[in-house]
Amino acid sequence: MKDLLFSVEEYMSRVTKTKASMEEKGMDVLIVTDPANMNYLTGFDGWSFYVHQGVIVALDEEQPIWFGRGQDGNAARISTYLEERNIYAYTDDYVNNPAKHPYEYVADILRERGLDKKTIGTEVDAYYYSAKCQQTIEACLPDAKFVNGYNLVNWVKIVKSEREISFIRNAAQIVQKAMDTAYNLIDIGVRQCDVAAEVLKTQIKGTDEFGGEYSAIAPLMPAGVRTSTPHLSWSDDVYKDGDTVILELSGCYRHYHCPLSRTMILGNAGQKVRDLGATVAEGLTAALEGIRPGMLAEDVERIWAKTIEKSGFVKDSRIGYSMGLAYPPDWGEHTASLRPGDKTVLVPGMTFHMIPGIWLDDCGVDTSESFVVTETGAEPFCNYRRELLVK
Amino acid sequence: MKDLLFSVEEYMSRVTKTKASMEEKGMDVLIVTDPANMNYLTGFDGWSFYVHQGVIVALDEEQPIWFGRGQDGNAARISTYLEERNIYAYTDDYVNNPAKHPYEYVADILRERGLDKKTIGTEVDAYYYSAKCQQTIEACLPDAKFVNGYNLVNWVKIVKSEREISFIRNAAQIVQKAMDTAYNLIDIGVRQCDVAAEVLKTQIKGTDEFGGEYSAIAPLMPAGVRTSTPHLSWSDDVYKDGDTVILELSGCYRHYHCPLSRTMILGNAGQKVRDLGATVAEGLTAALEGIRPGMLAEDVERIWAKTIEKSGFVKDSRIGYSMGLAYPPDWGEHTASLRPGDKTVLVPGMTFHMIPGIWLDDCGVDTSESFVVTETGAEPFCNYRRELLVK
Repeated sequence: MKDLLFSVEEYMSRVTKTKASMEEKGMDVLIVTDPANMNYLTGFDGWSFYVHQGVIVALDEEQPIWFGRGQDGNAARISTYLEERNIYAYTDDYVNNPAKHPYEYVADILRERGLDKKTIGTEVDAYYYSAKCQQTIEACLPDAKFVNGYNLVNWVKIVKSEREISFIRNAAQIVQKAMDTAYNLIDIGVRQCDVAAEVLKTQIKGTDEFGGEYSAIAPLMPAGVRTSTPHLSWSDDVYKDGDTVILELSGCYRHYHCPLSRTMILGNAGQKVRDLGATVAEGLTAALEGIRPGMLAEDVERIWAKTIEKSGFVKDSRIGYSMGLAYPPDWGEHTASLRPGDKTVLVPGMTFHMIPGIWLDDCGVDTSESFVVTETGAEPFCNYRRELLVK
Repeated sequence: MKDLLFSVEEYMSRVTKTKASMEEKGMDVLIVTDPANMNYLTGFDGWSFYVHQGVIVALDEEQPIWFGRGQDGNAARISTYLEERNIYAYTDDYVNNPAKHPYEYVADILRERGLDKKTIGTEVDAYYYSAKCQQTIEACLPDAKFVNGYNLVNWVKIVKSEREISFIRNAAQIVQKAMDTAYNLIDIGVRQCDVAAEVLKTQIKGTDEFGGEYSAIAPLMPAGVRTSTPHLSWSDDVYKDGDTVILELSGCYRHYHCPLSRTMILGNAGQKVRDLGATVAEGLTAALEGIRPGMLAEDVERIWAKTIEKSGFVKDSRIGYSMGLAYPPDWGEHTASLRPGDKTVLVPGMTFHMIPGIWLDDCGVDTSESFVVTETGAEPFCNYRRELLVK
């Protein structure tokens, strides 16, 4: 019945690294609720993160303990290596019920395992770890000490294994097909949703060798004035002469992502967007080529900023971030950012999405590359022409 | 530049109802972070809920106040009716930065508007309202009183307007096309991801009159033993003789959903799943036909439970929930559930997804209908054969 993507040894080595980090921070127990972190430590899969669920890592327990909704218990049995005694499924009356909260159940588990008087870390700023989760568990376990465990697992997973990188390479094959689909179909008079439909189809169909997975972010495909901001998507209007179209897409293989952005201009597009496109591509290329292991994350941003200085364009947001294994709503890992002040040392096996997008009042340009830090520099996962896509 | 889906009057009537509920509960200010609630009150759209953002409703302020990341400010300008003075965009160094938290910025806004000593409700158990948000705002505003504002807006939006219902009807057209796509393509030897790709294409392409939107939940399409749990999805294996395939899909139009589930059996499927399919369809039909306005939510479950009693199958989870406007990760509204103990009175204009799925050790059946409560009963949004889909 087990359907594991990595060896039990690889999962357990992740658990061991997590425990070492916990020990260093004086933590006995860590409650992990970020679905990507749950998957990383146990293999757990499923679109069940819309109800409260998690895995508990305790220094005193060999395996993590999964908790979740009753009907999702079989997903834990199918997708993880956990023993039956480490799978706790709560009854359905805990779901969306103001009279009961799932973290009362979590407190019961911790009490049963003798962990209710320990120092407990929680992912305080993670997706799906609500204020109510923290309020409930604090009220239920008055003898425990609570500390901040946010991003602890995220920092453990920042350096990828060979097998993880091979998954991202598969995702890279998919995203390049999706970008081709978008480029081939977008044209003046074509309905935006019809193109988005074919892009999604391409993302999921994958290749003849492997299929694609739902991505942590839907295809972001704004057109026209909607490109003045990065997170709007398609509409059912048609593309118009002079439109700028931003394409921020990702391939996704087994929940590992390879994001890639390009910007397209249609027909009679203005000179400003052409200049902006050339500037962004030049800065992106310089920054990618300048990366060496041992550099700091902020050094990469410096190369970019110095390269585009002469253009007059300004970017006031980070130019990239660590990425990889993810569930909605984000493929970013929330650890290292390529921006001033970030002192993360770049190490081989780290994977980033460098996306130095610039959005002006009426248009914007996104051009990006996902890359892995190697022994000698940075290797982009994709090989896709970096200039503006013109039609 | 404004791109509103509803009249400003309709948005403001929602704000007025929200304020009335706040007043009743002794709340001066409500911080709304659920993306569906943000959209409901202001029209705000965009896949930017992966960073902290929200709208603040204050009894003393006519319009809500939007806050979010700098680069998403233009999304507020494009998709909402808010005046420029009510749009607050924070600098990018607040994003994924352990040294700064966006709720320090939110506290600054409340101070600037003279709201820092008020009674402030927060959506304590909503998606994207993390424990850290609550910890930060409480630390920043020591003179404020904090109360639970979870689900306040959700209860305001439970009864839909005519225009909202027309959006769900559009979504219903889309989901029936998606179900046809799945039925037509699924067959022994076909790769699961190839079918999922066409289903997603159908969802987004929509009809000749209108396009589709990304759904709050990806198509859930488990096959074989993976149907013993509801939230696994496709793989890149091929469908096999004897497989059960669960199809939980949704149409989505302008973020309004119409979910629909059917279960398919391939070739030599067992008698147990056929019996289960007949039982679920019979119970679903009886419950739907028995609904009258004025009934309680729990009464609907009683009809279902009595109808299937004789079969020997047991369902230990709720059979449905209120649904409508939603962003990932859930199309449910987290208010009324069709289950024992839920005393919500059914009122015309409420919309539900009734999904009495049953999952056994090695297979499961989902058959569902989305419906609106009318003056005389319940009207399903779809008209799709309710029995098991056999091939």
